[in-house]
Amino acid sequence: MRAVVLRRPGGPEALRVERIPEPSPGAGESLIDVTLTGVNFDDLERTAGAQPELPLPAVLGVEAVGRRRADGRRVAALLRQGGGYAEVVAARDAYTVEIPAGVDDAQALGLFEQGCTAYGALSLAGRLRAGESVAVSAAAGGVGHLAVQLAVALGASPVIGLASTSVKRQFVKRLGADVALDPADPELADRVRAAAGGAGVDLFVDSVGGAVARAALAGLAPFGRLVCLGWRPGTRSDPGTVGGGAVPAGAEPAGTQDPAGVVAVTTAQLAQGSIGCAGFWMRHVVDDRELLCGVADRLFELAARGRLTVHVDRTVALHEVGAAHAAVAARATTGKVLIDVRREV
Amino acid sequence: MRAVVLRRPGGPEALRVERIPEPSPGAGESLIDVTLTGVNFDDLERTAGAQPELPLPAVLGVEAVGRRRADGRRVAALLRQGGGYAEVVAARDAYTVEIPAGVDDAQALGLFEQGCTAYGALSLAGRLRAGESVAVSAAAGGVGHLAVQLAVALGASPVIGLASTSVKRQFVKRLGADVALDPADPELADRVRAAAGGAGVDLFVDSVGGAVARAALAGLAPFGRLVCLGWRPGTRSDPGTVGGGAVPAGAEPAGTQDPAGVVAVTTAQLAQGSIGCAGFWMRHVVDDRELLCGVADRLFELAARGRLTVHVDRTVALHEVGAAHAAVAARATTGKVLIDVRREV
Repeated sequence: MRAVVLRRPGGPEALRVERIPEPSPGAGESLIDVTLTGVNFDDLERTAGAQPELPLPAVLGVEAVGRRRADGRRVAALLRQGGGYAEVVAARDAYTVEIPAGVDDAQALGLFEQGCTAYGALSLAGRLRAGESVAVSAAAGGVGHLAVQLAVALGASPVIGLASTSVKRQFVKRLGADVALDPADPELADRVRAAAGGAGVDLFVDSVGGAVARAALAGLAPFGRLVCLGWRPGTRSDPGTVGGGAVPAGAEPAGTQDPAGVVAVTTAQLAQGSIGCAGFWMRHVVDDRELLCGVADRLFELAARGRLTVHVDRTVALHEVGAAHAAVAARATTGKVLIDVRREV
Repeated sequence: MRAVVLRRPGGPEALRVERIPEPSPGAGESLIDVTLTGVNFDDLERTAGAQPELPLPAVLGVEAVGRRRADGRRVAALLRQGGGYAEVVAARDAYTVEIPAGVDDAQALGLFEQGCTAYGALSLAGRLRAGESVAVSAAAGGVGHLAVQLAVALGASPVIGLASTSVKRQFVKRLGADVALDPADPELADRVRAAAGGAGVDLFVDSVGGAVARAALAGLAPFGRLVCLGWRPGTRSDPGTVGGGAVPAGAEPAGTQDPAGVVAVTTAQLAQGSIGCAGFWMRHVVDDRELLCGVADRLFELAARGRLTVHVDRTVALHEVGAAHAAVAARATTGKVLIDVRREV
């Protein structure tokens, strides 16, 4: 089969298309004939040698959609150890879900991991109720642009999106946000509070940390919650992913994702405002099969009804993966970057 | 009228019954002919001179029930500046609610402030859903013994109560707790997790702080929340009260309520467990009239149906207040200490 193989760390040029044997599925795994995989920030890190704990040579790619060879079903899979940049992958059944007819492969790929992260932050960690106000940072980003749409679909009002450029803020408003704010605004907490109606915002989903997370805490209403993504100890990448990081499309600069962005709060601070702070790591959804399937079904249903749409920046062939990595590294993409593993030209 | 007046700080002997003029109600206040008031930890602090910001001489007492003179209605009132240890008090209408027929004065007094705190911690800050597991520390205490009963009434299961003596743990089980644990157990987090079914507890309400709060965090399930009471900066007392502290009946030693009990958490820690930490301060209920009335109505309804009962330790006369303070200070009481202001012998 054809696959993109990383033999030693390097830049995008280290990614080469090779012909290698198909993988052999282990216990609890199934072969999938891949149609699409996605570029994730995690892939860039691994290419650069930032994940020395994972062996090389390796096929990158922490997510894939395609047909399960055993029964021909269309499925989406999360791949802890990579393997997605290939015509065939051996995927763990526990992390694989079937895709309903109303959802195409590209939407399913974009929804499964990043949509589950957005849903987990809003609903599971954030315990969002209809009628509450919601703010989302990096709202033009991979997780953020789904979180904005999901908040609207779940009945939140108003929905406030933070994005760092005017173009991104326009995008965020087209997604359904009532208000789009600049995270660099020195009065950010006041702006969030005003946008939410004066008393503060009920739920703030933040993947930026540092000053944005502190402004988020200051902008919460009584009984409001800040939900933090991206602060698993010992990693620079988004814990909302199985393999590592989210696509940084529209995301803040990488520097904001390093451990310096971690924020400490005391129980006294929280009591003084009657506010809460929670974290979300996608692992706690992935490791609960019933929950994973329930969340995926909900997302696929919303997508099938047109309430949730993954914005695709571009779709490349396997031999274009190096260039796609370079574009992602340069922050030149907005939305999901897909790889069509069957495209030869 | 007869009232207990504190002229200068001291021990219980500083509290003397005097005849003084009735208070004059200001704007937004009404006179209440008091039947019962309660001893609160705040009163002990103020007696000892720990609240120099409040003027003396003063009538203590941060809560009262009685009849509103204007319309003869039975009401319960929270008193920010004290005044409850008297035959008549001028109470702010915004902090006063009517008591329904099915709830007697003693129950209403015990339910209004401490019941609202327990409800706020479980429902408003903790966002409890039926079927979730709940743990409560200081579960034989003023707020705790109501939180245990409320958790059961709200459909939580299992309900775990922490209390420091065997007698208190028996009391906690009679309140409806499925399991009673010793907070001094070095394996507390493991015990809580096991009692909740293995994965951890969904909601932990803690008013102790320090090691108990840290064990609570370690014992949470994914998407579990720790709700902290008692950690308003600059005070040793429970922020769940308007005037100050909760009755320490069955509570942990006062030393655990000082700022050393404040716990810090980082967003990275929270993300690693997909857990949350929230604070609750009763002020955010008191200052929202619609919320305050809604919560009080809910509590009175549960009490009228026998689902929630305030445990009364003793009822004393005004001239016995000094002795009652001494008993509370000596941790010799379990439950609410009431003062019947009309009792003369």
